[in-house]
Amino acid sequence: MVMNTIEGPGNHDLNCLTIKELEKHAYNLMDKQTRDYYNEGADSGSTLRENIEAFGKYRIRPRVLRDVSSIDTSVEIFGQMNSIPLGVAPTAMQKLAHADGELGTARACKNMKVAMGLSSFATTTLEDVAEASGDNPNVLQLYLFESREHSHKLIQRAKKAGYKAVFLTVDTPFLGRRNLEIRNQFKLPPHFKIANFTEDEDAALVDEATGNSSNQSKQRKPKAEPVSGYHDGEKRVLPTGPITFHSHAANPTLSWERDIEWLKQECSPEMEVWVKGIATGEDALLAVHHGVNGIVVSNHGGRQLNGALATLDALPEVVEAVQGKIPVHVDGGVRHGTDVFKALALGADFVWVGRPALWGLAYKGQAGVELMLRLLSDEIRLCMGLAGVTRVQDISKDYLVKVSVLGLRG
Amino acid sequence: MVMNTIEGPGNHDLNCLTIKELEKHAYNLMDKQTRDYYNEGADSGSTLRENIEAFGKYRIRPRVLRDVSSIDTSVEIFGQMNSIPLGVAPTAMQKLAHADGELGTARACKNMKVAMGLSSFATTTLEDVAEASGDNPNVLQLYLFESREHSHKLIQRAKKAGYKAVFLTVDTPFLGRRNLEIRNQFKLPPHFKIANFTEDEDAALVDEATGNSSNQSKQRKPKAEPVSGYHDGEKRVLPTGPITFHSHAANPTLSWERDIEWLKQECSPEMEVWVKGIATGEDALLAVHHGVNGIVVSNHGGRQLNGALATLDALPEVVEAVQGKIPVHVDGGVRHGTDVFKALALGADFVWVGRPALWGLAYKGQAGVELMLRLLSDEIRLCMGLAGVTRVQDISKDYLVKVSVLGLRG
Amino acid sequence: MVMNTIEGPGNHDLNCLTIKELEKHAYNLMDKQTRDYYNEGADSGSTLRENIEAFGKYRIRPRVLRDVSSIDTSVEIFGQMNSIPLGVAPTAMQKLAHADGELGTARACKNMKVAMGLSSFATTTLEDVAEASGDNPNVLQLYLFESREHSHKLIQRAKKAGYKAVFLTVDTPFLGRRNLEIRNQFKLPPHFKIANFTEDEDAALVDEATGNSSNQSKQRKPKAEPVSGYHDGEKRVLPTGPITFHSHAANPTLSWERDIEWLKQECSPEMEVWVKGIATGEDALLAVHHGVNGIVVSNHGGRQLNGALATLDALPEVVEAVQGKIPVHVDGGVRHGTDVFKALALGADFVWVGRPALWGLAYKGQAGVELMLRLLSDEIRLCMGLAGVTRVQDISKDYLVKVSVLGLRG
Amino acid sequence: MVMNTIEGPGNHDLNCLTIKELEKHAYNLMDKQTRDYYNEGADSGSTLRENIEAFGKYRIRPRVLRDVSSIDTSVEIFGQMNSIPLGVAPTAMQKLAHADGELGTARACKNMKVAMGLSSFATTTLEDVAEASGDNPNVLQLYLFESREHSHKLIQRAKKAGYKAVFLTVDTPFLGRRNLEIRNQFKLPPHFKIANFTEDEDAALVDEATGNSSNQSKQRKPKAEPVSGYHDGEKRVLPTGPITFHSHAANPTLSWERDIEWLKQECSPEMEVWVKGIATGEDALLAVHHGVNGIVVSNHGGRQLNGALATLDALPEVVEAVQGKIPVHVDGGVRHGTDVFKALALGADFVWVGRPALWGLAYKGQAGVELMLRLLSDEIRLCMGLAGVTRVQDISKDYLVKVSVLGLRG
Ligand SMILES: Cc1cc2nc3c(=O)[nH]c(=O)nc-3n(C[C@H](O)[C@H](O)[C@H](O)COP(=O)(O)O)c2cc1C
Ligand SMILES: Cc1cc2nc3c(=O)[nH]c(=O)nc-3n(C[C@H](O)[C@H](O)[C@H](O)COP(=O)(O)O)c2cc1C
Ligand SMILES: Cc1cc2nc3c(=O)[nH]c(=O)nc-3n(C[C@H](O)[C@H](O)[C@H](O)COP(=O)(O)O)c2cc1C
Ligand SMILES: Cc1cc2nc3c(=O)[nH]c(=O)nc-3n(C[C@H](O)[C@H](O)[C@H](O)COP(=O)(O)O)c2cc1C
Repeated sequence: MVMNTIEGPGNHDLNCLTIKELEKHAYNLMDKQTRDYYNEGADSGSTLRENIEAFGKYRIRPRVLRDVSSIDTSVEIFGQMNSIPLGVAPTAMQKLAHADGELGTARACKNMKVAMGLSSFATTTLEDVAEASGDNPNVLQLYLFESREHSHKLIQRAKKAGYKAVFLTVDTPFLGRRNLEIRNQFKLPPHFKIANFTEDEDAALVDEATGNSSNQSKQRKPKAEPVSGYHDGEKRVLPTGPITFHSHAANPTLSWERDIEWLKQECSPEMEVWVKGIATGEDALLAVHHGVNGIVVSNHGGRQLNGALATLDALPEVVEAVQGKIPVHVDGGVRHGTDVFKALALGADFVWVGRPALWGLAYKGQAGVELMLRLLSDEIRLCMGLAGVTRVQDISKDYLVKVSVLGLRG
Repeated sequence: MVMNTIEGPGNHDLNCLTIKELEKHAYNLMDKQTRDYYNEGADSGSTLRENIEAFGKYRIRPRVLRDVSSIDTSVEIFGQMNSIPLGVAPTAMQKLAHADGELGTARACKNMKVAMGLSSFATTTLEDVAEASGDNPNVLQLYLFESREHSHKLIQRAKKAGYKAVFLTVDTPFLGRRNLEIRNQFKLPPHFKIANFTEDEDAALVDEATGNSSNQSKQRKPKAEPVSGYHDGEKRVLPTGPITFHSHAANPTLSWERDIEWLKQECSPEMEVWVKGIATGEDALLAVHHGVNGIVVSNHGGRQLNGALATLDALPEVVEAVQGKIPVHVDGGVRHGTDVFKALALGADFVWVGRPALWGLAYKGQAGVELMLRLLSDEIRLCMGLAGVTRVQDISKDYLVKVSVLGLRG
Repeated sequence: MVMNTIEGPGNHDLNCLTIKELEKHAYNLMDKQTRDYYNEGADSGSTLRENIEAFGKYRIRPRVLRDVSSIDTSVEIFGQMNSIPLGVAPTAMQKLAHADGELGTARACKNMKVAMGLSSFATTTLEDVAEASGDNPNVLQLYLFESREHSHKLIQRAKKAGYKAVFLTVDTPFLGRRNLEIRNQFKLPPHFKIANFTEDEDAALVDEATGNSSNQSKQRKPKAEPVSGYHDGEKRVLPTGPITFHSHAANPTLSWERDIEWLKQECSPEMEVWVKGIATGEDALLAVHHGVNGIVVSNHGGRQLNGALATLDALPEVVEAVQGKIPVHVDGGVRHGTDVFKALALGADFVWVGRPALWGLAYKGQAGVELMLRLLSDEIRLCMGLAGVTRVQDISKDYLVKVSVLGLRG
Repeated sequence: MVMNTIEGPGNHDLNCLTIKELEKHAYNLMDKQTRDYYNEGADSGSTLRENIEAFGKYRIRPRVLRDVSSIDTSVEIFGQMNSIPLGVAPTAMQKLAHADGELGTARACKNMKVAMGLSSFATTTLEDVAEASGDNPNVLQLYLFESREHSHKLIQRAKKAGYKAVFLTVDTPFLGRRNLEIRNQFKLPPHFKIANFTEDEDAALVDEATGNSSNQSKQRKPKAEPVSGYHDGEKRVLPTGPITFHSHAANPTLSWERDIEWLKQECSPEMEVWVKGIATGEDALLAVHHGVNGIVVSNHGGRQLNGALATLDALPEVVEAVQGKIPVHVDGGVRHGTDVFKALALGADFVWVGRPALWGLAYKGQAGVELMLRLLSDEIRLCMGLAGVTRVQDISKDYLVKVSVLGLRG
């Protein structure tokens, strides 16, 4: 898509000219529990910070005296046009940030022609989001529960609602340790719902095991407390009670062999199956081998294994391993248009942003998400223009140089 | 030129012994809009900072027991003698700093025998500056507008006024994003003029398209609002209205093929054509190929593409590519005599300083610019003496060592 | 050992979720003399800090989609099962931290099934500790005194009490310079005893030389002042007076040839002989050559030679030299489960923590040590799970990448 | 020399346990002019800081289980025994720090059996210092003036007084730019004298030119203002007036060919000729070629060319070039016993400390210098013991490892 202008001085929100400022506003607007939940990384938070700082290892080599009066920032994703090579990553419980919640995000994405990932643990049903999105290409993020029945239902609903792909999150066999979340004894306030599963809850039959998993407590009462799964020394005991993020999201039993095959069958032919949370070349090869449709290099925004490689640092080995056989996306720490440019130059086909969308919501609901997308879109276009590139596919390693010292980044 | 002394304690301005102190004084003396406009870099400002810090990667290897009682710091530029291998880079709207404006700079440069670059967007006409400069070798910085008529006129006037060369700025296909400038809604105060174009404005015929560009709004009234150019999806729409930096400076249509040839014809035979804003070896080769007379390695003082390589870091690949066929200059972050020495040791023929001259103006008008030049001149001479070098052309890579860690710099 | 759960939100001490927080609490709870004594490193403290920061040079490469529902964190040590690959290192005078002292540590270790090292300079007798430990595998740390009689007695008592091994500390030929300790004129308060030697003191016959050492002052009165050993220019003069850490711990005469042989005979066959304080591949080879049973790579928590290599940085050359012939342990700066994972990936068989146990004691006595062990145990298990590893022996170099820049660590 | 003990807790000055503390005390005790003059480096001070930080690039590899009960820290210098491989570097005008002045330094050095360098610009005559030093091996630092008569006299007096060598300072063709000194308009207070030249001054015939220098102003009155030398465009004009550091120390005319030969003849056979201020392998080779007796790698404590390599970083190339043909000493930034160890391991034969002696003087006159030497002596001995070395000549590269990241230093 060829857009017309690079934002002129007249159209700015003078209070919020950068993602950094957006973050600051959101920081002040969110209540403590939400702010901590959204902003925190696991443990000391070093991977969260390093996701951001990794971009500081690269410099751009701008080319000059090329006619860049017509720049096309668009890319194709799931067969549709995306205005920029960037989407909004799935993040849970967006109503915590603003009443607009996932609908606000969906509408902003639609207006900006940007793909959206919807979390399994959204506070809005996937059907409502799909409706708000129209024909914008959306993706359902999946935590494949130990009780497959839930996932089966979810997938079928997503198919019906027109989702283009399922992103199976694979970096969450256990929940990362987030100490502020623990200290705050984080809970979704009662007036919000994990919308995609309330139906199951109302049926009060939340936790049937399926397939070859062990099978227990079928006669539990409705409104029981949520209990995480565990291993009793001999066998795995499944989570029980209402479906919450803390009890049900983590699934340590997932494996390439058993679950990817099942998932592909469930999703086909309407939806693609991607894996989100790949961080090594070895696993990228396995992903190709097991026939997934795409990879998202991710460490869950630094919320899972603290001490893992920054995603930008893991990206090159994944790109190298995949050799173009399937698309490679990346998320984590993208806060500038130049970050997008760098990720693409290192071989990513597309990037996703998580927290910036939440900050946008917190700032002004749907309008805030749009503002966030506009800021990044302007910066991407400007970066391309100043680097002398007019098409996304021309962004290559030639435009980058790695610096030995981390250097400075604001 | 052989100067006599290294500044003795008697002749100092004890309030201002370093460029750093000059910066501090200027900071306090300028109004906020001007300070922000002068000092800011694009986006987070990391490239601005890195331009400065890049000098910290090199250490000097001083040689001893050589007779250095007679040091010649002079070099030739455009066939004339320059007292030091340094000039004052073109910066726009110098009257914002001090009533002396460009005339103050010109006189200081003349007194110190130092070349001056005049911005297209000066607040003084190029003729007045030329007159103040006498036979000091000056250069006209050019933003080649989409409406060539303006540029044509400017070039012919510059020729007539005796300018030695045109520096075509090539790093500004779009304006870099400078957030303070946006937030301050920066505008030249009404009592100042973009002096080189007021004539055009008075004629109220500001924006005729030329050549193969599209052509519109000929019937606009005088004093219309300035409007930037843009691409409407199908074709390029030219800027209109009074000529301002924000509306007219950026020109995304420039290309080696079309515009350099035109410019060479316009300037020849009196003026040389240089390109200012080269940052890669590839473009340096193209510059040689297209027959320009010289190159300024520059990233516009960190004001255009934030994330670009520091100019000192880009310099070696440019020097390597050019192989001495045309002169290579560099600007960005020069604040010490040792910085000049390092740039020259890495292969530059000459360096330019931008902000330090503006700080000099803000501090004391013409006298402040002279002080700035005296400080740097003394430091250059002292550095050469302490390094054991008596002629500029003897400064070579042998006098440098690159350190792996950034180290410290004050 | 297969443990069941990763700590759920319900069981946390919300005031103390990390070792860092534990340190902070302990800092506030200890009196100044104790705090300084426990926390200080030698000289400027740079090695102490670098022990910790060295872990920041490595990133973990997590593998996904492996069934990690059953994780076994246990390892064998001295033929017994340890719940995690971590033990509590010997640290002197634990009653300074809390009345529970070494008994508290012993009981916590026993409850958590974690090996304990007992310092020669404990404030509790080795027999009392052994009793509290039951069949938990304990180790006696040994300062081999110049007067062998003391050491002989101690060793025989340790044998009888069931200690599994002796850790001969070899990095203390002299005491490191700890300036706060000097300034505070550190002394064990009179109501505490260096418990293992009070018996000797009561006999008022503290300092008989043995073997080929010189022999003097047999007729000294009880309760004389402790005096360090020294060299009078011609011969070595032994320490005299009551046995204190400052007078008797340092022994500059120790050598591979003379002392290791003697020690092996003293300890065999019941107890193994290890050397604690190896920091080079060369000495590791000598250790193998002289038939010791194992090595602890250690720099005494940065309390001896400031400026020595961080232990994690010394570990690889030791592992390389030893080639699996004897076990290699490491201590120094371990504060996170990921630190343990990294040390093991670099080839350590086991790690020890020193100060964290003291902080645990200071915080809540035995319960505090248990909390410390629980935190680290949870983190180790979680790190393994998130990295895709289910058995300690599978942790290998493949899971690590060294980063060129130190990066960030909280 | 075998010393007996490593300082026990009883003998400490509890207010001053490290050189860092000594620096702090001195900072508070000196008046501003003196503090600035002593502590400052040239320009931004980065080389001064980097001299210190360079030691942070190396770690020590300690060896264990070697009998280190008898450690000999002594070395030979000028055929005499020095208790440690360290001397006190020549620094000007020591009475500014304390009335004890150079005599205090001389007596402290004598008591500690440590060589002393006396500055040409001492506030005490070289004869008085020689007397206070007894048979301690002293060295006269020489600024070879443009008027050779002064230097001739000084050298002959030094010979007579029994100085062992002359250290010709070669890094001062011009004075480095020290901005605080300039701002303070530094002047030696009138009650102090540049003692070695008052005789000349009293004769009121201060500035006769000698040799082939030009010759002027013979008829000047006593007490004229000191005037620096300069080049008038055609020829060199010599300094005139009373001999001060600022007017006479710098001599840009010195060269290997002319001056080293002359100096060797002047000094022989009683005194050796060394060059102080070598910073490159190339100049080290020239020094060997011109037959000097030894080299001091120095950058004048960061007071001359700011931006020069740290002396520890320049040391290896000098050692490599010299290949043991003449001794190589080093000064700059030595503040710890481990620094001495590192310099020696990198090939230096001896180190010198400048500012620490001045701080000692400022703290407590002669006693303060002794304290400084005791602190460093204790630290050197302790470092050797903890590293497993008993003789200075055994300190080698095997005991060091260079770390890629600067690391931490307190
Ligand atoms: C508050 C929050 C909630 C998230 N929830 C989910 C989720 O439900 N499923 C998922 O796969 N990833 C989730 N993520 C991770 C994001 O999809 C994405 O990987 C990450 O936010 C990217 O890093 P960034 O925030 O630095 O852009 C969440 C992230 C945040 C910050
Ligand atoms: C306030 C300001 C205005 C400038 N205006 C122009 C300009 O009109 N044309 C141009 O080519 N460069 C312009 N520059 C860039 C300078 O020519 C030069 O490249 C830059 O200032 C060098 O970096 P330094 O400021 O760190 O020395 C400007 C720079 C500043 C700071
Ligand atoms: C206060 C204190 C006392 C110590 N006492 C001894 C001791 O008596 N014997 C010994 O071999 N090591 C001793 N150590 C060193 C520890 O055994 C261990 O090597 C070190 O604490 C590990 O580093 P960490 O504290 O960073 O975990 C002591 C350490 C501390 C902090
Ligand atoms: C206040 C001061 C005065 C000095 N005067 C002289 C001098 O007169 N001649 C000389 O050769 N070096 C002089 N030096 C340099 C010292 O000899 C030595 O090279 C330097 O101090 C070593 O660095 P350090 O101070 O970090 O130990 C002086 C240094 C200082 C700090």
